[in-house]
Amino acid sequence: MPKQAILREMGLRDGLQSVATIVPTAAKIEWIRDAYAAGQREIEVGSFVPARLLPQLADTAEVLAFAQTLPGLKASVLVPNMKGAERAMECKAELMLLPLSASHAHSLANLRKTPDDVVAEIVRIRDARDAAGSKTKIEVGISTAFGCTIQGHVPEEEVVRLVQYVLDEGVDSVGLADTVGYADPQQVKRLYEKVLKVTGDKLNCAHFHDTRGLGLANCFAAWEMGITRFDASIGGIGGCPHAPGASGNVATEDVQYMLQSMGVETGQDFDKLIALRGKVAKWLEGEQLHGSVWRAGLPKTMKEQVTA
Amino acid sequence: MPKQAILREMGLRDGLQSVATIVPTAAKIEWIRDAYAAGQREIEVGSFVPARLLPQLADTAEVLAFAQTLPGLKASVLVPNMKGAERAMECKAELMLLPLSASHAHSLANLRKTPDDVVAEIVRIRDARDAAGSKTKIEVGISTAFGCTIQGHVPEEEVVRLVQYVLDEGVDSVGLADTVGYADPQQVKRLYEKVLKVTGDKLNCAHFHDTRGLGLANCFAAWEMGITRFDASIGGIGGCPHAPGASGNVATEDVQYMLQSMGVETGQDFDKLIALRGKVAKWLEGEQLHGSVWRAGLPKTMKEQVTA
Repeated sequence: MPKQAILREMGLRDGLQSVATIVPTAAKIEWIRDAYAAGQREIEVGSFVPARLLPQLADTAEVLAFAQTLPGLKASVLVPNMKGAERAMECKAELMLLPLSASHAHSLANLRKTPDDVVAEIVRIRDARDAAGSKTKIEVGISTAFGCTIQGHVPEEEVVRLVQYVLDEGVDSVGLADTVGYADPQQVKRLYEKVLKVTGDKLNCAHFHDTRGLGLANCFAAWEMGITRFDASIGGIGGCPHAPGASGNVATEDVQYMLQSMGVETGQDFDKLIALRGKVAKWLEGEQLHGSVWRAGLPKTMKEQVTA
Repeated sequence: MPKQAILREMGLRDGLQSVATIVPTAAKIEWIRDAYAAGQREIEVGSFVPARLLPQLADTAEVLAFAQTLPGLKASVLVPNMKGAERAMECKAELMLLPLSASHAHSLANLRKTPDDVVAEIVRIRDARDAAGSKTKIEVGISTAFGCTIQGHVPEEEVVRLVQYVLDEGVDSVGLADTVGYADPQQVKRLYEKVLKVTGDKLNCAHFHDTRGLGLANCFAAWEMGITRFDASIGGIGGCPHAPGASGNVATEDVQYMLQSMGVETGQDFDKLIALRGKVAKWLEGEQLHGSVWRAGLPKTMKEQVTA
């Protein structure tokens, strides 16, 4: 089994976009500085969407500019369309993440576009990127890959088809996302196995939400399939619009604990993550944080390892 | 992979022994009736320990007597010593669970006995059982099998040795317990693999606490090793004495959701479990309940299955 893994921090984007509180830019910069000091080397810093839609992320360009000053930090941004992609490229983002919903119903409800229309937009973005000679990489995140709150079941063949389609169109990498917390670990193994057959190493990301408590089991299942990059948000922040009080992304510190416990290196420092969680809790005062291990702390067995 | 599994309800014993609230006997009887109506067929109803130590479980004989009126319900009790075993046999309990700590330090601190002294007591209990012609089965639960809050690391060879020892001495079955929430899913697979080699089908129980959020990942790992009996408590009640605010046993309804999601039959009705959780929350007013899926409910994909 893989002995190294990467946790990509989602708190500043997937987390903050789902809470009402607007975290000041200075606090975001402190957050990124602390996350970097805790060993995080991949952070999704925001999203290039209109500020009137997501005022929480209106300062993405400024936050990204700070992140780019930290050596070896891969800062990514989410972009929903050509306009956002243009801003990402102007800002020389290393990676832009383009969501593509595998659920037709979800795609229509959210964007008034079918998944194939979204792929057409992705192709235009890739063309624009190549024409401009931009070095910004494109990752397509297949959302609702494990089921959808509107459509219900999402056919696995449709996920495989869309992944194949965008890779044929020259995007750099793909990820599978369980945006609504529908996945179970057996399904995770089955879908990753199918998708890995068409992607090879161009699929190396698992994005799970812990809405129904299976987030860590799903990460474990993906790790057993050879996946070594996990999206997570500190304190599981963000919640779920369809399930008040439920967790958002799997909590960074919980995934860190599980991997560390299994002897998988992530380069992250557990205590520093917990300290950062405390700061985030203050910045988001009144919002609910999630995750488990922060209450109990590391087991004695792991403290012994750290000391040894 | 196995397509059927059993959830053994621990709430009335492992749960209640760790909370201050004393649930009245009538409420326990209602609890068992509802659990039975929800499809539960294995319930640990209490413990034969001195009432001054655990007043919450002082009515175990009465609760057991009620459980024995329900056809096909396997009611078990925990017994820490010969005195408790005698009471379990008098009450014609179908199964008595004897804990045996694999951690020397924990065993000495808790019982002032080494694990081998505890095995000697187990042998005396088995002798008494056989001499009396009692039909009460003996299951030995190896506690701190994955690590210990006092001792830290617990050697896997010691777990294997103790399991072999008690089986050689004629106990009916064994289980592995992560009483303090130290296990990770890779460790679960490794230890179950080792132990299954000496037990065959006499090991068919996984007892995980969700202290650090890995409870469901650990259940999944055990299920992948062929284990089909899981201890769990409704609402994850009981907490952890070493980690205030943390969960106790994995939550019955979360394990049920995971298994059901993977197409594993347990005979339990999810909605009835959630309704029971609501009652338990009232009986334990002021105590913290845990678990995840109760907030979000079943995903649409599973509701479709139920309707179909």
